[in-house]
Order: sequence, then structure tokens, then C-alpha cells
Amino acid sequence: MKIACFTRNSVPGIGNVEADGSIVPFDLSPESAARGIASLLEIGSPSSLPQLAPIAACEIELRAPMPRPQRNIFCVGKNYHEHAKEFSASGFDSSAASGVVPKEPIIFSKLPETVIGTGQPIRIDASVSKAIDYEAELAVIIGKQIRGATRENALDFVWGYTIVNDVTARDLQGKYSQWLIGKSQDTFCPMGPIAVTADAFDPQSARIRCLVNGELRQDASISDLIFDIPRIISTISAGITLQPGDIIATGTPAGVGIGFTPPRYLVPGDNVRIEVDGIGVLENPVVAYGNGA
Amino acid sequence: MKIACFTRNSVPGIGNVEADGSIVPFDLSPESAARGIASLLEIGSPSSLPQLAPIAACEIELRAPMPRPQRNIFCVGKNYHEHAKEFSASGFDSSAASGVVPKEPIIFSKLPETVIGTGQPIRIDASVSKAIDYEAELAVIIGKQIRGATRENALDFVWGYTIVNDVTARDLQGKYSQWLIGKSQDTFCPMGPIAVTADAFDPQSARIRCLVNGELRQDASISDLIFDIPRIISTISAGITLQPGDIIATGTPAGVGIGFTPPRYLVPGDNVRIEVDGIGVLENPVVAYGNGA
Repeated sequence: MKIACFTRNSVPGIGNVEADGSIVPFDLSPESAARGIASLLEIGSPSSLPQLAPIAACEIELRAPMPRPQRNIFCVGKNYHEHAKEFSASGFDSSAASGVVPKEPIIFSKLPETVIGTGQPIRIDASVSKAIDYEAELAVIIGKQIRGATRENALDFVWGYTIVNDVTARDLQGKYSQWLIGKSQDTFCPMGPIAVTADAFDPQSARIRCLVNGELRQDASISDLIFDIPRIISTISAGITLQPGDIIATGTPAGVGIGFTPPRYLVPGDNVRIEVDGIGVLENPVVAYGNGA
Repeated sequence: MKIACFTRNSVPGIGNVEADGSIVPFDLSPESAARGIASLLEIGSPSSLPQLAPIAACEIELRAPMPRPQRNIFCVGKNYHEHAKEFSASGFDSSAASGVVPKEPIIFSKLPETVIGTGQPIRIDASVSKAIDYEAELAVIIGKQIRGATRENALDFVWGYTIVNDVTARDLQGKYSQWLIGKSQDTFCPMGPIAVTADAFDPQSARIRCLVNGELRQDASISDLIFDIPRIISTISAGITLQPGDIIATGTPAGVGIGFTPPRYLVPGDNVRIEVDGIGVLENPVVAYGNGA
């Protein structure tokens, strides 16, 4: 199933995206629908929910599938070979101790309040950072609680997938050594446009692309991940209980702004468009904000 | 005020700790009380709440002041001079790019589900880590939303203080380069015993001590922080909106297990006791758990 979280006339809803693009809403209270996929996970199978009359796509405004994750989003760093090389060469890699290509997954986090939906603006404050970069990533949505997943059973705990843009302030990522601040500036996690359940999406056969102002910057097969999704889930869950609703962003391929000489950072007026076959298009404008506007 | 979050006959409550150690509960629903200080922050001034009849300390079981923070706990690394030296010399410091004494605060996070109260067991799983260490820390509880705090006004946004033990799997901290996994193993954030409002606690004049099995390991003045609390708050909030209920652990002084040769890690049967003048004693047993038990 393809699941859209949306507002219609400012009222939150969740529905099934049909082949023709129309949306068949589930019969949920606005309060439940406001929590996005988190509500569906509590209910169990979304297909068991009563449905309402279809709505045309033009009548709704998409929201992030998980508008406010219950805790920080897990993220994986340097998880595509060519990106690991470009990042290590950039001078911003405070993880250099682990080498150009990491021997183990690099796991960090982004604050839940960084999440925005497709169409919403990435706000950049030039008084805080002048080196803001995009990172197109496939994200996993955990569906069942698990500690000690194995590589063999890890995918049993995956509810589905979405796209995130792991927007990063490169200067802050380097300056503070640990990446939390550079990764967690307000609005730095565009997510969407929708979520796709695990039975309807195969990460091994999909490509991910990122275009800035229409120019192709990132284009990779998700099967090129250094540490695949089962390995990431087994690594995190070895001693950390993963919870339903946890989001794991799996890493970005080569072609980010710091991969260019000179670097090509995001500036107000830019448009960042991420495409994943089978999920859709996550597109966000970049706007100036705050003291730096 | 000194605020205790507790259960009495398994029912959650919150109350004011009197000079004689008795507790005067606020008239809150069990559902509100279960959320700890987060509920008080929504209500505003706890002193305005109706109070019930006093209870003797022996009738209650303390819980963490914030049993489930709303998002990951912010933490500061290498924030006392002598500890920065011992950690850099330990071989586990994947932040070495920033030097022995960091030029900027190192900010990372711990998952909210790591929190346990005083008396609850720190569970260590030898199949996941064999290098588990204690870190006694003063923690700040944010009371008001703020983006762009200055060093001058930062303390206006502090509701109060508590103690945390930033328990750390040193091997995982080094192995994964970013510290999230090594810091976020289940039960790795003892917090308490109580919280103290900002008007009743002066971090500049308090000492923090840690004893393992009665042996003094850490003993420092909190005024020795490399980056003081206003600096930490202004750094994080520059581009990240801090929310009421956010917890910031301010860093640990010298004397952790890896500071010894050979290192002195925690093992099942140990008892870790942290004392901060004016807040109290946070004490936790260490038990074997999981596949490594």
C-alpha cells in the first residue's frame, strides 16, 4: 500500500493512494490522523480500517508520513562507497578515525522536530551556517518492537519506507565533532511525500536521485549501500530496543554539495527534489530565515 | 523547590520534598503525574498546584524526574579539563579531530528510553559490550521554548536541575565513530533522585562525586566545566529550537573507568552512586542481562 498523510481544509487525514493518484481516506479521528503513520502502527493493519469516499489529489496538502517521530531519527553516515570518498576528502569529516570507508555503520541522530513535509521550506539561517547541503536518503519505518534482530529476521520488523532529505550544515558538522547539531537545525528533515508498506517496495531494485534546481546531482542504486538495511537494523538493535515508529535514514550516495570543487551549497531560492522509484518525489524550496535573512 | 516523582502503591505521583524528607504530593491525576516534570512544565508554576497530605519517604518509590523525555537527551562530551585528557588518552576518543580539549562543545544524544530512576538496575549485556563505564553529570531541565539564547539570557530558560549517569559502552563508542549507540544502550541513563528548581540550586557552587562500590572515583566542582551552562544552551539553541522538557547532560569530570590503567569497567554486582550537593544521591546497581547474562 501507498499511504498519504495529509490535511484537507486544514483537517488531518490519512489515506490509501490509488493507482490513479486519488486518495481513499481511512476513517480516523483528526487527532489520530495528525500523528501520521504512528497511529496506523498502533491500529495494526491499515487495510482493516473502514474507508471513506475518494478525494482527488488536488484537494489535499501532503504532510510528512511521520510528522513528529517519537524520538530522534536514526541516521547512517558514509554508507555509499563513492559518497564515503567525497565526504572524507571534503575536510568536514570529523569521523575520520574510522577510515574513508567505515568498517562499521556510523549511526547518529536528528531531532524529531526537524521533520517537514514535501513542499514545505527548508529554512537556512546564514548567521548560523553558510554551508548547508542536501542528502537524499531512503528511510526505513520500523513497525514492531525488536531488540537483537539478526540479519536474517531484521526485515520482519520493517513496516515500510519513505524518503528523507538529511539536510546538513557542513560547517557545524565539522565544528562540533559529533554530528547532532549540524544535522538537527530546524526544518532539516524533509520527509515524504508518502510512505510505502514493505510488501510494496523493494529497496534492492530501486534508484534514488536528487536534483537541485532541475540539475541531477545524486543518482544511485539503493543496492549500493555499504551496510544494507538488515545489517543496520541488527547493529542498532543489538543493545537498543527499536520501537514501532522509529525512523532510520540509511545514508546518502555521492553527489552532495561538498563533493564539488568548490562546494555547491544550498542558497535561498533553490529547489531540492528527491526521487525514489516506487515512493515518489520529495520536493522542498530553500528560504532564508532568522537572523541571517 | 525540590520535586520528587514517585509511585506509591504503584500509583504515580509528584510532590514537594520537605526539609524533613517527607513529600507533599501535588493534586495531579495519575496520568499527569506519570509524565513527571513534563506535566509540571505544562501547568506552569508547581507552587500554584493544590497539595495533598504529606507522605513519609519510606512509603514511596522514586522515579526519574523525566521518566520518558520527549526526544533524545542532549549531552556534552569532554567538558571538564582533566576528563578531556583521560578520555583522549584512552584510545576510545573518536572525536580526536577536535583536539584534547575541545574548542567547541561536543554535543551528542542518548535515546529517551534509556532513562531509569534511582535504585533501578543498569543492565549490561556482555554479548554486546565488555567495556561499560559510568559518567556522573549534572543535567539541566529546559523550562521554556527558546531559539537563539544568548550567554546572558540562557539561564532564564532553565527550569531546574537533576543528576544523570551518562553510562557508556566505550567499545561501541569507539567502534561506531559517532557516539549514539555506545551512549544509548537500554537502561544507560539513570536520572534523579529528584529535580531541583533553578531558584534553589547554584551549579557554580556545587560539587559532583561518583562512588563505585563505595570507592570515590569522581570528585569535582561543577564550576570546572570547560563550557558552562549558558554557553551550552546558546550553542545548541543557535539554530535548534529548545523545547520545555529538554534535558541537557553537561559532561563528566575525571575519574571514569577508562581513566585507570588498566580500565576499571562496571561489572554485574557493582553499585554506582552519584552525589550532587543540593540535589541528592542517584544510586544504581549493575546487573547482567540478555544474551551475555
